[in-house]
Amino acid sequence: MLAQPGPDLLSLNTATVRAQWTLAQIIEGCAKHQIRGISPWRDQVAQLGLKETARLIRDAGLKVSGHCRGGMFPAPDRAGRLAAVADNRRAVDEAVELGAACLVMVVGGLPKGPDGRPVSKDIAGARQMVRDGMAELLEYARASAMPLAIEPLHPMYAGDRACVNTMEHANDLCDELGSGVGIAVDVYHVWWDPRLKAQIERAARAAEKRILAFHVCDWLVPTIDLLNDRGMMGDGVIDIRLIRSWVEAAGYRGLHEVEIFSAANWWKRNGDEVLATCQERHRQYV
Amino acid sequence: MLAQPGPDLLSLNTATVRAQWTLAQIIEGCAKHQIRGISPWRDQVAQLGLKETARLIRDAGLKVSGHCRGGMFPAPDRAGRLAAVADNRRAVDEAVELGAACLVMVVGGLPKGPDGRPVSKDIAGARQMVRDGMAELLEYARASAMPLAIEPLHPMYAGDRACVNTMEHANDLCDELGSGVGIAVDVYHVWWDPRLKAQIERAARAAEKRILAFHVCDWLVPTIDLLNDRGMMGDGVIDIRLIRSWVEAAGYRGLHEVEIFSAANWWKRNGDEVLATCQERHRQYV
Repeated sequence: MLAQPGPDLLSLNTATVRAQWTLAQIIEGCAKHQIRGISPWRDQVAQLGLKETARLIRDAGLKVSGHCRGGMFPAPDRAGRLAAVADNRRAVDEAVELGAACLVMVVGGLPKGPDGRPVSKDIAGARQMVRDGMAELLEYARASAMPLAIEPLHPMYAGDRACVNTMEHANDLCDELGSGVGIAVDVYHVWWDPRLKAQIERAARAAEKRILAFHVCDWLVPTIDLLNDRGMMGDGVIDIRLIRSWVEAAGYRGLHEVEIFSAANWWKRNGDEVLATCQERHRQYV
Repeated sequence: MLAQPGPDLLSLNTATVRAQWTLAQIIEGCAKHQIRGISPWRDQVAQLGLKETARLIRDAGLKVSGHCRGGMFPAPDRAGRLAAVADNRRAVDEAVELGAACLVMVVGGLPKGPDGRPVSKDIAGARQMVRDGMAELLEYARASAMPLAIEPLHPMYAGDRACVNTMEHANDLCDELGSGVGIAVDVYHVWWDPRLKAQIERAARAAEKRILAFHVCDWLVPTIDLLNDRGMMGDGVIDIRLIRSWVEAAGYRGLHEVEIFSAANWWKRNGDEVLATCQERHRQYV
C-alpha cells in the first residue's frame, strides 16, 4: 500500500464548492487553506472573466490541473457538430490562457434536439461523432500545445453526457487519434471496471504520456441522485489509494483533483469546512 | 432490421405491476391479457405459497421465463457465504417446482454488515466470492437440471447489488464455471457497453446454450432514481430491437421478459393499462 500523498498534490475542482462560493472566493479559499491546485469550470471563468481568472490564479500561485471542460460533440446535424468543434477551440484557448495541464473532455452522449432531449438511439453513431469531433479539434489543440484529456464517464451517463464510458474505450480512441490526446482518470467513473488495472497498465505503454489527470471523490451506498450525490473521499466504497497506486505505477505524477457534486451534503456546508475536509480526507484516503 | 416479435414471446416479470397487484392477481392478469409468460419474484412466491403459485401458473398455461432471483453471494464471513449458498439451493428448488427456464442470478455487491451497508472496498475480493459461491451452488443446480443465468447488472449497482457488470465478465465466469451456467441479458444493464455485440457473439460460440434470458425495458433520459425509474420500451434511448437482433443471431429463441421498476409512473397506473402498454410496446419496440 502507498504512503499518504503530499499535501501539495491536492487540487480543487471548483464544482466542489460552487454552491457556496464564487470563483474569486474559491481561489482565495485555496490560497488561505494552502491548497496548491485548482480546476475551474468554463461558466465560472466566463462570469469572472478569463484574464481576471488567469491573473487571480497566477497571483495565488496555483497550478491548474485541468480546465473543465470541452467535449459534447454529438449533434443531430453537421452545423451542430461544427458549432461544437468551434466552441471547443475556444475552450482550448481558455485552457492555454489559464496555463492548464489539460483540457478535460466530457465527450457528449446521444445527439440532442433543441429541448435538450436525445433525438437518436444510435450510440455507435454518437461514438463516431465523438471520434470525428476529437480528430477535428486535435489539430488546433496540438498547434496550441494543449493536451486533450478524454474523461470516460460512468455508464449511467452514456445517454446524456458521455458515450465514452470505459478506460478501454478511451485508450482505443487515444490509439486511433495519436499525439496530443490522453485520459482523465476519475475514480468515480471507473472504479467498478474489472479491466481498470489492465487498461491503466495499457495507458502506461503508450508512446506519450497518456494519463493526464487523476480525479477523486467517492461512490456512496446508497447513491440517491445520478448527478449530484458524490461522496467525500472515505465516505464510500472506492479503494482510492489502490487506484492511485495503479496510476502512479503507470507513471502519473500530477495532481489529485477533488471533484464532488453533492447537493444534499457538501454544497450545503461552509466552504472552509469543505476545503479542510478535502485536505484531511486526501491525506487519509487518496 | 428485424420484424415485429410474435405476441407469444412476451413474458411479464412480476415486478412490473407488483405495486398494484398480488401475485395471484398478476397471474390472472396475464391470462386475461393473453400474455404467455411470467417471471415471479421469490418474496411474492413465498407469500402466495410455492405449491399454490406453481398450480396457478400451470392452470393459466404460462411459461416461466425465469425465477427471480438467486445470488447475493458476498458476505463478510464464511458463515454468511454458506448461508447464501444454502438459500440459493432453496431458490433452485423453487425454480424447479415452478418449471422455470432458469434461475436468474443477481450475484451481489460488496460484502455487507448487519445494517446492510458495505463493510469492504475490495471489489476484486467480492468477485472472487461470487465465483466461489456460484461454483458451490452449481453442483446442486446441475443435479436439479436448473440452469443458472448470471445477470450482469449496470455498473451503478456494483457496490450494493451485483459486482458482475458486463457481458464480458459474465462470459468469463461462464467459461470458468463450465456446464449449467449462462447469462440473462437485460438491455437496461448492458445497452451502453461498446463491447456488447462482440460479447453476445462470443456467447454464441460457447459449447452449450449460454444466453438463457432476454429482459427488456428502457433507459430514460433523464433518469431520476437509480433503482426505480426504468422506462417502458420506447420511452427511452435503448435500441432494443437492435439488441434483440444480436441475441437472436446468437441463437436465442426464448421469451422477451418485461421488467420495469417505476415508482413515479408505471407502478401508479392501473395494472390492466400497464399490461396492455407492455404488449403494444413489445410489438413496436422489441
